[in-house]
Amino acid sequence: MEKKRGLLIGRMQPVHNGHIQVIKETLKDVDEIIIGIGSAQLSHTLKDPFTAGERVMMLTQALSENSIKHRHYYIIPMEDIQLNAVWPAHVKMMTPPFSKVFTGNPLVDRLFREEGYDVTRPPLFNREELSGTEVRYRMLHDENWESLVPQATVDIVSEVDGIQRLKDLSKKEVSDLKKRE
Amino acid sequence: MEKKRGLLIGRMQPVHNGHIQVIKETLKDVDEIIIGIGSAQLSHTLKDPFTAGERVMMLTQALSENSIKHRHYYIIPMEDIQLNAVWPAHVKMMTPPFSKVFTGNPLVDRLFREEGYDVTRPPLFNREELSGTEVRYRMLHDENWESLVPQATVDIVSEVDGIQRLKDLSKKEVSDLKKRE
Amino acid sequence: MEKKRGLLIGRMQPVHNGHIQVIKETLKDVDEIIIGIGSAQLSHTLKDPFTAGERVMMLTQALSENSIKHRHYYIIPMEDIQLNAVWPAHVKMMTPPFSKVFTGNPLVDRLFREEGYDVTRPPLFNREELSGTEVRYRMLHDENWESLVPQATVDIVSEVDGIQRLKDLSKKEVSDLKKRE
Amino acid sequence: MEKKRGLLIGRMQPVHNGHIQVIKETLKDVDEIIIGIGSAQLSHTLKDPFTAGERVMMLTQALSENSIKHRHYYIIPMEDIQLNAVWPAHVKMMTPPFSKVFTGNPLVDRLFREEGYDVTRPPLFNREELSGTEVRYRMLHDENWESLVPQATVDIVSEVDGIQRLKDLSKKEVSDLKKRE
Amino acid sequence: MEKKRGLLIGRMQPVHNGHIQVIKETLKDVDEIIIGIGSAQLSHTLKDPFTAGERVMMLTQALSENSIKHRHYYIIPMEDIQLNAVWPAHVKMMTPPFSKVFTGNPLVDRLFREEGYDVTRPPLFNREELSGTEVRYRMLHDENWESLVPQATVDIVSEVDGIQRLKDLSKKEVSDLKKRE
Amino acid sequence: MEKKRGLLIGRMQPVHNGHIQVIKETLKDVDEIIIGIGSAQLSHTLKDPFTAGERVMMLTQALSENSIKHRHYYIIPMEDIQLNAVWPAHVKMMTPPFSKVFTGNPLVDRLFREEGYDVTRPPLFNREELSGTEVRYRMLHDENWESLVPQATVDIVSEVDGIQRLKDLSKKEVSDLKKRE
Repeated sequence: MEKKRGLLIGRMQPVHNGHIQVIKETLKDVDEIIIGIGSAQLSHTLKDPFTAGERVMMLTQALSENSIKHRHYYIIPMEDIQLNAVWPAHVKMMTPPFSKVFTGNPLVDRLFREEGYDVTRPPLFNREELSGTEVRYRMLHDENWESLVPQATVDIVSEVDGIQRLKDLSKKEVSDLKKRE
Repeated sequence: MEKKRGLLIGRMQPVHNGHIQVIKETLKDVDEIIIGIGSAQLSHTLKDPFTAGERVMMLTQALSENSIKHRHYYIIPMEDIQLNAVWPAHVKMMTPPFSKVFTGNPLVDRLFREEGYDVTRPPLFNREELSGTEVRYRMLHDENWESLVPQATVDIVSEVDGIQRLKDLSKKEVSDLKKRE
Repeated sequence: MEKKRGLLIGRMQPVHNGHIQVIKETLKDVDEIIIGIGSAQLSHTLKDPFTAGERVMMLTQALSENSIKHRHYYIIPMEDIQLNAVWPAHVKMMTPPFSKVFTGNPLVDRLFREEGYDVTRPPLFNREELSGTEVRYRMLHDENWESLVPQATVDIVSEVDGIQRLKDLSKKEVSDLKKRE
Repeated sequence: MEKKRGLLIGRMQPVHNGHIQVIKETLKDVDEIIIGIGSAQLSHTLKDPFTAGERVMMLTQALSENSIKHRHYYIIPMEDIQLNAVWPAHVKMMTPPFSKVFTGNPLVDRLFREEGYDVTRPPLFNREELSGTEVRYRMLHDENWESLVPQATVDIVSEVDGIQRLKDLSKKEVSDLKKRE
Repeated sequence: MEKKRGLLIGRMQPVHNGHIQVIKETLKDVDEIIIGIGSAQLSHTLKDPFTAGERVMMLTQALSENSIKHRHYYIIPMEDIQLNAVWPAHVKMMTPPFSKVFTGNPLVDRLFREEGYDVTRPPLFNREELSGTEVRYRMLHDENWESLVPQATVDIVSEVDGIQRLKDLSKKEVSDLKKRE
Repeated sequence: MEKKRGLLIGRMQPVHNGHIQVIKETLKDVDEIIIGIGSAQLSHTLKDPFTAGERVMMLTQALSENSIKHRHYYIIPMEDIQLNAVWPAHVKMMTPPFSKVFTGNPLVDRLFREEGYDVTRPPLFNREELSGTEVRYRMLHDENWESLVPQATVDIVSEVDGIQRLKDLSKKEVSDLKKRE
């Protein structure tokens, strides 16, 4: 019998507990989940501080930590392309075949729906706290971010000096103290 | 005797009556008009909902509907390029030779003027209502947009499920209900 | 009743009588034909001497010369992209919807077949003589190429100084008289 | 104690037994191996018939089939970039940190060596038969290719109709029966 | 003895007295300075009005005007790339080897620091007035900008009709008088 | 009185005595020469072993060594673009204004001629020996290449370990000992 595969895409800046919960939840619905790490080309900005490689490592270790069997998922970094109408074809090229898409993003929803896919909104868990925005905010302001993420994220952020990276990137450029613009 | 050709560029998101009126008007001045469909690579956003192919089809049928003779125009989709200084050369590569440019856009005006072209501002008709922004606003808010566009646009928007596409794209992403950013 | 549209792609370097015959033939099978001018980004080489704009102009005038009604075709320049698996989606973005593909190219055939399209090999007419290769060869060697192409091609090649362009491009670079490589 | 990670890159068109043997061998030397699937953007050619997604799936299943523990490897598709001098930085962006590179390719060897990496040539097993070239040759000529690859490759080639894809791509274009070039 | 080289990057829209002062200052610290002209691909916008070539010419003449010996500097136009993590490698490819980076930009600072470079903030001189923003503001409002720039900038802005270019680009598009957006 | 500027483009892999002689010769004809270092994006191949930065450094030092006054030349790295018809516009964007082009390349000749430039073939000196191909051949085969290049090239090839780079790149990949292809 052929396996039922689903697609789930997120920027994972960084990987947090909400991602792990959603992955567990979708695995109740499909045999295998393809996890696309979105905006793979971005890093070293306040909104996208971590490289694709760092995020692949966070997610791989976090899934292992959560005893999710490897035969149940694929992790694929995905670069943005500028052509919305071509994006689903690009995703298909980079992934094993899938029949279902899990997304809360209206553009992704619409694009795959136009291609005939079954699209579902995944459940969100404690969205107030479990968001990349919240985690990055806490990292920058020395608040407790560690409780929102798996141990793997804590370890790798430390290994790549992530907190300092974020703080450095938040500094104002001297020349931004301009008189007018 | 050599033909006098003019260039006119617009995003045509979607094709509306103002485009048809401007094309008719410019054809009083030149023998043939090259109509560039701008930002051809964009689609599926609130500002640029339709694909290049959909826009080519709208315009081709609308001109036919308006009895504009085909031997008088060329329709060419044009992708944006990031290099302003190179853009006129790119346009020239994609089009038959032309000597006149019709544009109300200051950048396009300046770029072609620096290349030695004769640049004219085309007349605008009832600009309050005849703009892509107004048409898209009405589409999204169930107001009367059909009166602003040729029948071809009505037909093709219907064929490609365009109103629903626009409404779907206007939905908020759940994760945008964030505490902070 | 919805129109049946077909897709036909060729580099048209330059437009010759074989293209016109194939277009006429396919129009017996579909209501409208979308003619993609392939490798639109290429020009000024021995194999691809003419720009996309020059080829659009040749084809538009040649179809008019042959009394093919404009409401039956679309002409769309198409740049190559490097990703085969994404190419059909790119073509779809740039064109009106179509259900049938006419091609003699095994890659194009396979790619559209994998996307579920009905693919047919178009008839070829007097392939010995009616090929772009043959036309370019004759242009370069001052043989009779004019009999192989529509009048529009003769006119435009003359307008853009095409024979001299081809001959200039065929010159050897002095530095190619190298001792070794 | 920090983990020792190595990098190994191959096009894997398709994954064959030589790949599996090399991965097993390198895992004697490092704790974790990052396996880059090279030329990820290519597919549907005689030399590169399979998509990145198909190759990721082949390799993931083949490693599982061979009981290689998932905590020991990462699989990352890698698109070619045209700038050799920038390529190692691109690889680093897409991968977890690594200190050792396994490669038999002189360019990859030189590029990483210039960046200060420890580069080793991996062992090759029965190179006469265990090469992608040989496997693709046998696929095309109905010889026994199945014995050269893991069961996962056999299964996925069948699932994606790979043999027929290869045979279709090997057909001559009619227009290639040209008189001269 | 090997030379000590430093890197300094600026958009130089246009070259002003602050740039010259900083270059002089950094030359007290290194033997040779590599001056990268950033965002080389941009021109003809209000923020980036001048082409890379125009900026190269301004800077070359201004340094000569200031009697800075040519054997002490290199001027290299540098296009932006979208991948932060790869950018230092791109800069290295385009420049002679260097060991020190002068920058007030937090991203550039962080990126080169992660690659192990010695990064220093260059001194800023009279930052209130000596900024590209201030110079462009004055150009547009017919205030005294000439006192803020070297004679070379005055000459070249005049040669390329720069003030009029800036004023033309600042015009509103008629279609921007829209009712809603 | 306005300066007369000329353009000269070469890959300079590496800079040799022929380049220096041609530059000296063209400077008899124009006030300033813009020297484009072509294929700037390429490096680490047998045909293009050196990076743009290395070539800029070679040329800058070689011109200084030859007492060519810096106020007489500009050195600009130029990446290849794939669109011939757009290439002259790209060159113009990256360079100070020029009115004359020196080239022995038929394509460059034709492209600039179509844009209305005065194009001249530069003199070639002892072309048998003074070619990049010859220099690279001798580097690879331990013959006397040093006599064909300026001292700057000898120094920089040594500084960047260029001979070994070339020899490493010339090695066969083990997997190229394939049975069939």
